[in-house]
Amino acid sequence: MTLRDYQLTLRDVANEQPEYLETVFSLGNGHFGVRANDPISGNPITGTLINGFYETAPITYGEAGVGYAQKHQTILNLPDLRHVHVSTSSGHQFTHSKRTAASLDLGTGLLTEDYQISTDQGETIMMGVKSVIGQGQTSLWGVGYTFTAKTYAKGLLVSKSIAVPAEAEAIPSADPRKTRMAGLPICETEFVTQDLQRYHVKTRVTKQAVTMYLGILESHGQLLQQPVDLSDDQPHTLEYEAYIGEVGQRNTIDPAAMFMASSLGALAEDSQNFWQGVWTRSEVSVGGNDALDLAIHYNIFQLNQAAGRDGRTNIAAKGLSGSGYEGHYFWDTEMYMLPYFTYTNQQMARQLLLYRYQTLPKARERARTLGVDQGALFAWRTINGEEASAYFPAGTAQYHIDADIAYAVGKYFEITRDLDFVIQCGFEMVLETARFWENFGSWRQIGDRSRFEFHTVTGPDEYTALVNNNYYTNRLAKHNFELVVELAHQMMKRSPQLLAKFGMTENDLDVYQNLADHVYLPYSNELGINEQDDSFLDKPRWPADKSTKDNFPLLLHYHPLTIYRYQVSKQADTLLADYLFPEDLPLDQLKREYQYYEGVTTHDSSLSRSIFSILAARMGDPEKAYRYFMDTAQMDLVNLQKNTADGLHLANLGGSWLALVAGFSGFYVQDEVVHFANHLPTELDRLTYRMKIAESVLEIDLTADKLDVTVISGPIPTYGVSVNGELISLVKVS
Amino acid sequence: MTLRDYQLTLRDVANEQPEYLETVFSLGNGHFGVRANDPISGNPITGTLINGFYETAPITYGEAGVGYAQKHQTILNLPDLRHVHVSTSSGHQFTHSKRTAASLDLGTGLLTEDYQISTDQGETIMMGVKSVIGQGQTSLWGVGYTFTAKTYAKGLLVSKSIAVPAEAEAIPSADPRKTRMAGLPICETEFVTQDLQRYHVKTRVTKQAVTMYLGILESHGQLLQQPVDLSDDQPHTLEYEAYIGEVGQRNTIDPAAMFMASSLGALAEDSQNFWQGVWTRSEVSVGGNDALDLAIHYNIFQLNQAAGRDGRTNIAAKGLSGSGYEGHYFWDTEMYMLPYFTYTNQQMARQLLLYRYQTLPKARERARTLGVDQGALFAWRTINGEEASAYFPAGTAQYHIDADIAYAVGKYFEITRDLDFVIQCGFEMVLETARFWENFGSWRQIGDRSRFEFHTVTGPDEYTALVNNNYYTNRLAKHNFELVVELAHQMMKRSPQLLAKFGMTENDLDVYQNLADHVYLPYSNELGINEQDDSFLDKPRWPADKSTKDNFPLLLHYHPLTIYRYQVSKQADTLLADYLFPEDLPLDQLKREYQYYEGVTTHDSSLSRSIFSILAARMGDPEKAYRYFMDTAQMDLVNLQKNTADGLHLANLGGSWLALVAGFSGFYVQDEVVHFANHLPTELDRLTYRMKIAESVLEIDLTADKLDVTVISGPIPTYGVSVNGELISLVKVS
Repeated sequence: MTLRDYQLTLRDVANEQPEYLETVFSLGNGHFGVRANDPISGNPITGTLINGFYETAPITYGEAGVGYAQKHQTILNLPDLRHVHVSTSSGHQFTHSKRTAASLDLGTGLLTEDYQISTDQGETIMMGVKSVIGQGQTSLWGVGYTFTAKTYAKGLLVSKSIAVPAEAEAIPSADPRKTRMAGLPICETEFVTQDLQRYHVKTRVTKQAVTMYLGILESHGQLLQQPVDLSDDQPHTLEYEAYIGEVGQRNTIDPAAMFMASSLGALAEDSQNFWQGVWTRSEVSVGGNDALDLAIHYNIFQLNQAAGRDGRTNIAAKGLSGSGYEGHYFWDTEMYMLPYFTYTNQQMARQLLLYRYQTLPKARERARTLGVDQGALFAWRTINGEEASAYFPAGTAQYHIDADIAYAVGKYFEITRDLDFVIQCGFEMVLETARFWENFGSWRQIGDRSRFEFHTVTGPDEYTALVNNNYYTNRLAKHNFELVVELAHQMMKRSPQLLAKFGMTENDLDVYQNLADHVYLPYSNELGINEQDDSFLDKPRWPADKSTKDNFPLLLHYHPLTIYRYQVSKQADTLLADYLFPEDLPLDQLKREYQYYEGVTTHDSSLSRSIFSILAARMGDPEKAYRYFMDTAQMDLVNLQKNTADGLHLANLGGSWLALVAGFSGFYVQDEVVHFANHLPTELDRLTYRMKIAESVLEIDLTADKLDVTVISGPIPTYGVSVNGELISLVKVS
Repeated sequence: MTLRDYQLTLRDVANEQPEYLETVFSLGNGHFGVRANDPISGNPITGTLINGFYETAPITYGEAGVGYAQKHQTILNLPDLRHVHVSTSSGHQFTHSKRTAASLDLGTGLLTEDYQISTDQGETIMMGVKSVIGQGQTSLWGVGYTFTAKTYAKGLLVSKSIAVPAEAEAIPSADPRKTRMAGLPICETEFVTQDLQRYHVKTRVTKQAVTMYLGILESHGQLLQQPVDLSDDQPHTLEYEAYIGEVGQRNTIDPAAMFMASSLGALAEDSQNFWQGVWTRSEVSVGGNDALDLAIHYNIFQLNQAAGRDGRTNIAAKGLSGSGYEGHYFWDTEMYMLPYFTYTNQQMARQLLLYRYQTLPKARERARTLGVDQGALFAWRTINGEEASAYFPAGTAQYHIDADIAYAVGKYFEITRDLDFVIQCGFEMVLETARFWENFGSWRQIGDRSRFEFHTVTGPDEYTALVNNNYYTNRLAKHNFELVVELAHQMMKRSPQLLAKFGMTENDLDVYQNLADHVYLPYSNELGINEQDDSFLDKPRWPADKSTKDNFPLLLHYHPLTIYRYQVSKQADTLLADYLFPEDLPLDQLKREYQYYEGVTTHDSSLSRSIFSILAARMGDPEKAYRYFMDTAQMDLVNLQKNTADGLHLANLGGSWLALVAGFSGFYVQDEVVHFANHLPTELDRLTYRMKIAESVLEIDLTADKLDVTVISGPIPTYGVSVNGELISLVKVS
């Protein structure tokens, strides 16, 4: 494997929006994230995010109702670890700063930056910053500052500590807009030794606690206690390491001893080992467009940085790169990000599903609150498993999250055959979601036909709310029923007694099969396409005079009532179901549907374009697929949605991987056959990537006229492999 | 006219909930209201409500959106004017109190109460309280306290002043649930003379101001300055009067002079004159059930007390009897309360419509905010004309309020032929609402038929939200279009140039007629009934296992999503349209619809039963009509909904009048014919009532086998009068 296009540098960083750079160059390891704040002028009291470390505050409604979500859950902004105080020996503070270079090595995880910093008096020096986050040792982060003379070449003093929010900010505010800040955490900071600071933070309501340490690794010269003279033209370096404990656990390490035993080099090696593993498993290489090649690497890099690895945390919508969406986990994980892990790192996929399993008791409670007497309803947005969506028509009403999670369990099992997981956790989630659908839906008799329907739901398209028989929701619920039956049969192969463990008999399987067979899927005979819902096609199209560029995204310009009364989609909805179930509909229908829904979709959601790309490829229009793909692949790097400052669009990062794999190479799995098809657009010379199916790592290699699949490691697979519709035999290369 | 059953007394008042009594015995005159607080132990800082005197506070949303209502509007709770301090000459305070009798004379407006009051030491005396509110002089309220000995018969001291809220309560609260209290008004109080206190209250945000005075009318004995000796067995009386200025107007009266010139007797006379006029115009008398007769009088009494008379205020959902619903005006006015005024007191009806006209500029703005480029959308709930509904699916989405207001204008004109009002105000409201519908709706082609539809609306039934083609909404919008054409033709009779004043030509009338002709009205061929909306009949019925008594009202026990997904109605919806347009459908269809919708209606709204009563009467089932009527007629007197403490259900009061008039006597007006029909239930011997049509006061008199209509005053009408389907000739009696 050659590491090509793994060095992320941005041109002209000095003129970029600082908040955008902080996001783009953020480092993370699933446990915590460090935004790339300017160490001199950035905000020292915010910059670090710990996955799942959050506070709650009551949700205030203008008009509240029964069963509404009760509490905001907000990931905490913790102090920036990168901040440093630099002054001349005469006491002039270096308070001005310009980032002149920044480079993130996606092969090793090392972030290298240069800053030109100066005092009010115009004294200027250069500061290099190298930082790295532990990937094996996920409690650690290290940084080295190197100072060299520029216009100033005399004595220099450096000091560094964790900033503590001023007490004033911890006082609950009377301004109702600040409600979510009412519960600022209790922070204690102390110097354990002169070289080691402890920072202990406790939340007031959720009663979580985390201990952080910041200590000196090596002290070159007298930068700290006494000024060092820069006139020797030598670099003067100071290295620090931070330790971020686990949430809620008493810290049993001896940090002083640990810091003494550490070095930045050791941490860099830990990081490099991790990334080597990632790229060995999941390298993607795109020929013909180096910038694109780099962008894909970046996206995979950030997916890996964001994902919680401990089975108690998940992937926030913005990862650990920013506090947008309050650090909440959404369906984005299962439908957009999990596939990358399912097909490259099954252990991680399992951990992410375990998180959901841990929230199952709260999902059961939520179903009761929604008046459904059996089964479980997972929270639409959450950290701790409780519903935190304060606008239910586009939140809780998106019941499809239940079927999305079940779908992800099914895909995980399909590729791993991990029956232990199914028995221990997976089946219970699939069964409880199926029970929800069973009790939530209702039978309807039309003439002599019975069908099973779902009323007053919101599908993925948030521009259409509270409708009946959303196609996506119904199709996924149908699959949810089927999956109960399938997994039950798998378990019964191991032991016929296993069903009883879940309070089931074989008769129950007939019930679920019958439900699956009768779920209603709306179809328009007139248009020959699946209908997004019972009434979507009846509504007028979004008016032309409200369609100039400055009207988008619609949600920032129009009242929801205005948007809802038109036939307009924020994102792929019915088409998302078509992507998930490739064998559902013939190509001509897919083409009609694609054309129809493309005409009414604004792509105001970052989850949209990747799906349109995949389906364009499947339809044999790789050039269109390429255009949609290009809007997803570099979305955050070029700040396409203008809000990368709030954090990366993690689902889109996952979507860009899907667009390559499921789109350009036509990947999907069905009935124990792995399918590929060559849809490489002419703009690309080549696409090569790796994935792990069962125990085998495959490499897929596409050029204009061929698609090769080879086994890189592991056994020759027992499952079938189909390329362009024909089964092939795999050989192992070494 | 004999005043029978005009004396409201309640049995066992000492054991009634005090807040319920405060509401039931509240006095009002459209300008302000005085709750019947216990003068000794009641809450002295709340008890007076001024119509349209309100404060705003920002609405906090858990998740906000574009165009959401921005500000709460909350009627202010002002100090109780009834409070009095009584003590023995030795300084023992009378702090214990028991209301032993209360009687409200509906013929004169005089409220008479007896209290037994005592000190901690057990000293007990009796206190009689007589109070009355000015009805011609709407700034005045008067009270007289009379003290007599009981176990205590020695010296007594009395003092009285307007209580001022403690400063602490005026501080904005950090508790988000108290947001609406953040803007407590600025209160100043001073004694102008020893016998006259001034209370000036200014709001912080709305910058409204009101001045109140409280002064002594007559001082018997030395109750105030020196103790009076109760041992003489004589009653000792002290009389006060309060003056409540107009909102926002500088007070130019000399209150001291005014109070000196006043007396409680003069005020009582002013009140009695007013009520005499009311009963002359609108007496209703029910034979065979004295309690019911009294209840009807009470309802009419409270309607008259609540209605703003100045063209700048309206009728709050709770009138001036309590601050429930924040003192907001809803569609309740036009559809439930206005008919009583339209048919008995046209000047008042005109004033209430004028209020809406004054809010038209804000309604135009609101339409723009909702993405509708022409026309006006009246606020769903408001005091100042701005939308104050913080839950749009059951608020702003009830677009039907536009057509409700237009309907009320049409009914007013139909009966008054007041073309001046139409030209000055009425037509503009009807036209602007029609323009809203025109631009809000959309054409849809079904085969070779075109129809005009309205999407994503909520009808009167708040248990079903955001649906397409709500029958009620569409039917009313159709009428709104027709009304533009009809009123335009009326204006053109006076002057063909008048259309141009509204920027219209005769061609525009063709456009509105065409729209009216094509508004889609959903109808189920299968059931032979009008459909509540496009999908209502497709949903499952509310489940039996959630239908035990303690599950109602559903909105207090279930999440809206749970309620919305079932076929369940909070109130009359399609049937309300059927009531409004009696000639729309044949009797057999009405019977089918009634039976169907009765089966899915919970009557959780106080607006429901009166409509079911009217239609039952129309269908020839007066016994059922009577049962529904009995639940409406005494709703507040028997505290049926358990929340009379928050204020009276004004719409229900109006509805009970409608049930008598439109139900038992089959009253409606169509094409210049006034229709009556005898639907008197066997439970009643007789029903007699008065109404004013055009310039004539009619008296309608029903017994089991006859229905007489006579002219009481004014000319013999030129319009047709039909009884039981046959036109009759009227004679004037004197």
